Amino acid sequence: MISPIIFTVSLLLSSACHAAVQDFCVADLTAPQSLVGYACKKLETVTVNDFVYSGLGVAGNTSKLKVAVTWVTVPEFPALNGLGISLARADLAVGGVFPIHTHPRATEAIIVSEGKITAGFVSSTNTVYYKTLKQGDVMIFPQGLPHFVMNAGATPVQIFVSFSSENPGLQVLDYSLFSNDFPSELVAATTFLDIPQIKKLKAFFGGTG
Amino acid sequence: MISPIIFTVSLLLSSACHAAVQDFCVADLTAPQSLVGYACKKLETVTVNDFVYSGLGVAGNTSKLKVAVTWVTVPEFPALNGLGISLARADLAVGGVFPIHTHPRATEAIIVSEGKITAGFVSSTNTVYYKTLKQGDVMIFPQGLPHFVMNAGATPVQIFVSFSSENPGLQVLDYSLFSNDFPSELVAATTFLDIPQIKKLKAFFGGTG
Amino acid sequence: MISPIIFTVSLLLSSACHAAVQDFCVADLTAPQSLVGYACKKLETVTVNDFVYSGLGVAGNTSKLKVAVTWVTVPEFPALNGLGISLARADLAVGGVFPIHTHPRATEAIIVSEGKITAGFVSSTNTVYYKTLKQGDVMIFPQGLPHFVMNAGATPVQIFVSFSSENPGLQVLDYSLFSNDFPSELVAATTFLDIPQIKKLKAFFGGTG
Amino acid sequence: MISPIIFTVSLLLSSACHAAVQDFCVADLTAPQSLVGYACKKLETVTVNDFVYSGLGVAGNTSKLKVAVTWVTVPEFPALNGLGISLARADLAVGGVFPIHTHPRATEAIIVSEGKITAGFVSSTNTVYYKTLKQGDVMIFPQGLPHFVMNAGATPVQIFVSFSSENPGLQVLDYSLFSNDFPSELVAATTFLDIPQIKKLKAFFGGTG
Amino acid sequence: MISPIIFTVSLLLSSACHAAVQDFCVADLTAPQSLVGYACKKLETVTVNDFVYSGLGVAGNTSKLKVAVTWVTVPEFPALNGLGISLARADLAVGGVFPIHTHPRATEAIIVSEGKITAGFVSSTNTVYYKTLKQGDVMIFPQGLPHFVMNAGATPVQIFVSFSSENPGLQVLDYSLFSNDFPSELVAATTFLDIPQIKKLKAFFGGTG
Amino acid sequence: MISPIIFTVSLLLSSACHAAVQDFCVADLTAPQSLVGYACKKLETVTVNDFVYSGLGVAGNTSKLKVAVTWVTVPEFPALNGLGISLARADLAVGGVFPIHTHPRATEAIIVSEGKITAGFVSSTNTVYYKTLKQGDVMIFPQGLPHFVMNAGATPVQIFVSFSSENPGLQVLDYSLFSNDFPSELVAATTFLDIPQIKKLKAFFGGTG
Repeated sequence: MISPIIFTVSLLLSSACHAAVQDFCVADLTAPQSLVGYACKKLETVTVNDFVYSGLGVAGNTSKLKVAVTWVTVPEFPALNGLGISLARADLAVGGVFPIHTHPRATEAIIVSEGKITAGFVSSTNTVYYKTLKQGDVMIFPQGLPHFVMNAGATPVQIFVSFSSENPGLQVLDYSLFSNDFPSELVAATTFLDIPQIKKLKAFFGGTG
Repeated sequence: MISPIIFTVSLLLSSACHAAVQDFCVADLTAPQSLVGYACKKLETVTVNDFVYSGLGVAGNTSKLKVAVTWVTVPEFPALNGLGISLARADLAVGGVFPIHTHPRATEAIIVSEGKITAGFVSSTNTVYYKTLKQGDVMIFPQGLPHFVMNAGATPVQIFVSFSSENPGLQVLDYSLFSNDFPSELVAATTFLDIPQIKKLKAFFGGTG
Repeated sequence: MISPIIFTVSLLLSSACHAAVQDFCVADLTAPQSLVGYACKKLETVTVNDFVYSGLGVAGNTSKLKVAVTWVTVPEFPALNGLGISLARADLAVGGVFPIHTHPRATEAIIVSEGKITAGFVSSTNTVYYKTLKQGDVMIFPQGLPHFVMNAGATPVQIFVSFSSENPGLQVLDYSLFSNDFPSELVAATTFLDIPQIKKLKAFFGGTG
Repeated sequence: MISPIIFTVSLLLSSACHAAVQDFCVADLTAPQSLVGYACKKLETVTVNDFVYSGLGVAGNTSKLKVAVTWVTVPEFPALNGLGISLARADLAVGGVFPIHTHPRATEAIIVSEGKITAGFVSSTNTVYYKTLKQGDVMIFPQGLPHFVMNAGATPVQIFVSFSSENPGLQVLDYSLFSNDFPSELVAATTFLDIPQIKKLKAFFGGTG
Repeated sequence: MISPIIFTVSLLLSSACHAAVQDFCVADLTAPQSLVGYACKKLETVTVNDFVYSGLGVAGNTSKLKVAVTWVTVPEFPALNGLGISLARADLAVGGVFPIHTHPRATEAIIVSEGKITAGFVSSTNTVYYKTLKQGDVMIFPQGLPHFVMNAGATPVQIFVSFSSENPGLQVLDYSLFSNDFPSELVAATTFLDIPQIKKLKAFFGGTG
Repeated sequence: MISPIIFTVSLLLSSACHAAVQDFCVADLTAPQSLVGYACKKLETVTVNDFVYSGLGVAGNTSKLKVAVTWVTVPEFPALNGLGISLARADLAVGGVFPIHTHPRATEAIIVSEGKITAGFVSSTNTVYYKTLKQGDVMIFPQGLPHFVMNAGATPVQIFVSFSSENPGLQVLDYSLFSNDFPSELVAATTFLDIPQIKKLKAFFGGTG
């Protein structure tokens, strides 16, 4: 009565093995990236440490920039590969600002764990939704919409961030326009900004042209 | 020998009926929109005219704006509901410009059918990809990335546009920042633009604050 | 030179309107739920308050249960409808345990913001991955796999939780087996547990049969 | 020590309720069909009988047609709504043939449970893959490809069919061309068939024009 | 008039070739598995035999275990790669039981082709749905929900099984808890089972700790 | 005040780099094709020329065939890999016809840029939807449904085509039946066409058997 069951174990395990690799697919960062992510690390080499990331307990260094981001996406935490979620920690010193940016491939949810912020986004009907948030408040920025976060208080801000993709992407408006070789005349023609303003910000953000 | 087959017709047709409604789902624009689109118009009321849209043969009116877009998305062409594609025609008079904008939910492909343009986009590593295109050239703007198109010639431009979604969305940078009640101080703090520049463009685009 | 641009605003805005509702779809919880979620609240009635949830700053009440969960999913925060993400806060008093459970429709990521836990999951090759985590550590539980979290320290634990779906689902092993009218004989036959153990836990969890 | 746990039951159950409706979505066939299927029957009204379909134990009536299909898709078995699978039973008398047809939205897998068949499909590189199968053999027809099944033996055939969609669709070549009002001249021009052949089959399949 | 058409053949074939490989993607089991499955076997090497699997006509060996499963998933039938469906045959001798288990990535549909069973599943609101089924009955187990099947008659049972994924996965409750090195104290703390019961079942299922 | 911001540039750029490769995935056509497409060309080697395709300004050669297609899918334009859209240009001389065919994996939208056509498709309830279209008209053919296009005027026709997939596939009815080694007896048995008609078309389309 017992032995049959023990046989059952091996029977069913063998039939399950091929499926198990798809419970998760810890990224092999050395393999070429496909349209949908990385190839899977061999199951035999996966340990619990692949599923644990340490380091969100420490604030990023805001001494120089007033803002810092600690990313927990596939490159930092390969176990997220294919699982449709990623994280970050954002720290803002007093006066710190995350300028307008978008995440082309993810909705962002923030939890204010310390301090006070003003945060907002602009919809594609050009409505601006912004509000001042306190510790314990949550706000979401729907996928692909430009948004910003700034410290609105007199104390440092700590935010826990979640994304609806392991690969949210990031596009910062000022860097798109002013940190590269986008010719000033083209920027002017396609943004209606004045050339002197463009030149000033290109100098500021290390752009040329 | 014949009659059985004729019976087969009714047999198989009856079993197919319930499926047919999903060959297509012509939008009932009067029904509430769900996460994934509109409810389906009753199959009995669908005719070939639901699958045909007329009007891309005529240029939009560029006399005032130098640019015009004729959209062929679900509201104009309800048959596209759920089919993952939409179209447009863009006309640019000499000197016409489509300023930097994004489509949050679609890749855009353009075919230059008349004239000469300069078009480009910015990737999320802030690389600018732009080029001057002639009649017959195709260019793509990957989903969610800011891009622009301008007439680069001495003759009118006609472009046929395809989107990888029936609902591509549209977000124009200048309108997001300058056509609404986004407070100038917040715009300045989150874009690093100077207040006078912001005020000038808000006046220009009808914004307040 | 200015007026044309102002015309452009109305031109492009009108063409964008129909798309905007799909930037987000704040759930109308009074509408029937479809396969993919709720119908969208009318855009005109949406305000910034729809995108903000307050209340994760306060610990749940662990005085009776030693554990408490504050959920931030679609019913509590309708703006998440269709956005593929949800959140929760978990509090564990000293000795508190979240027993083995699964989320059938989401991967879970946890951030230990206070205290020390032991957490783990079982893969479908029956490997147990568990570890003791400290403040600032992150762990993930891949979609559909049974997992647990217990306070492993001498102080209260606070955890911020993210899910890769706005509707993760929850199935707790003990409630599936012992809190309902699942006949004890069937439970015994399909789990190999002994009847007295089953009866004891049914009494414990309010089950019958 | 017991009461806390009993409290836990209600605590976690309440938080799980909203999710449960999405374990399944038994179709309310009276509601309008959306792009993705039917609205969900109220959870309170769902019983085990919603998850059971009886009737595949009886052969369809092949006395007239030599072939019969018993469909188990959403209209016959509403519990399949949204679950991505459907079934059918096919019976073929001696000499019975299922003519060339496609399922636009599903891959089909067949299990020959009785008898002997010749079955095949044509790929989009126009390769014909066909073989004679015996009882216990499985064959698949990839999504959207034209395929056929015929009784290749001297005894009745029974086949169990599975589809990778709850709504596979069905399009039979002969009915598409010959059972409707598709003008013979248009059929001839677009298929290169001869008019007499077309007229003969239109008479055969009840078509006009 | 003929030759042009013959030219048309080569013209259109060449344009179709690149697409054909995506009609199907017979798995190359020797290639590394990606997030979404296996790489495709070269089209030139694919024959009709890749689309046919033989062996469901024979009962599995239930002499020792009272139950047996013959799996037809990607490893046994590589043509299923990417097609979203897989199959199995289950045999249960008199008294045979498939204990509570889940398929994390698929809905299961069963057809009772011989004998009489009792089958059921538990929803995430902890409702138990179970019933006794006879030959010809169909039952579904929605994705990710724990379910069981037992022979409820005095004769052998034969079941044909379909899954809504080529890779359904399998997780058997007893093996998750009792066939591995999951420490008994952790199992007790997270399941509320008594240590003696755990030790007894660990001995039974070959577990340690 | 400036230097911090300049630091921000490098900080955020580094965090964005890993995401950028997923803005687009220009196909490396030399890599093996996966279920979902090609591996990505290295980002460093991508230039604006990867995003531009030239050649739709020239009519295909219809002198022999009366019809010609210029395809712009992944093999011709690798930047489309993974972007869910592809294009083509179709030219029809007077009397030119594209016979009945399907695209198994895409909806097709056509824009008549010159001339006059008759176009149509057949739904899976065997309804024929066809109409004569003039320059500037748009028509859609829903995914997987058989359709045709013929020149209905006295002048050449030029059509711009868009597909809702970068890999639409193509299956032409006549080639599926008559251009290969599909045995005439099997074709007859599964289409109800007469053997002489089949033999005539096999001779016509270069088929055997």
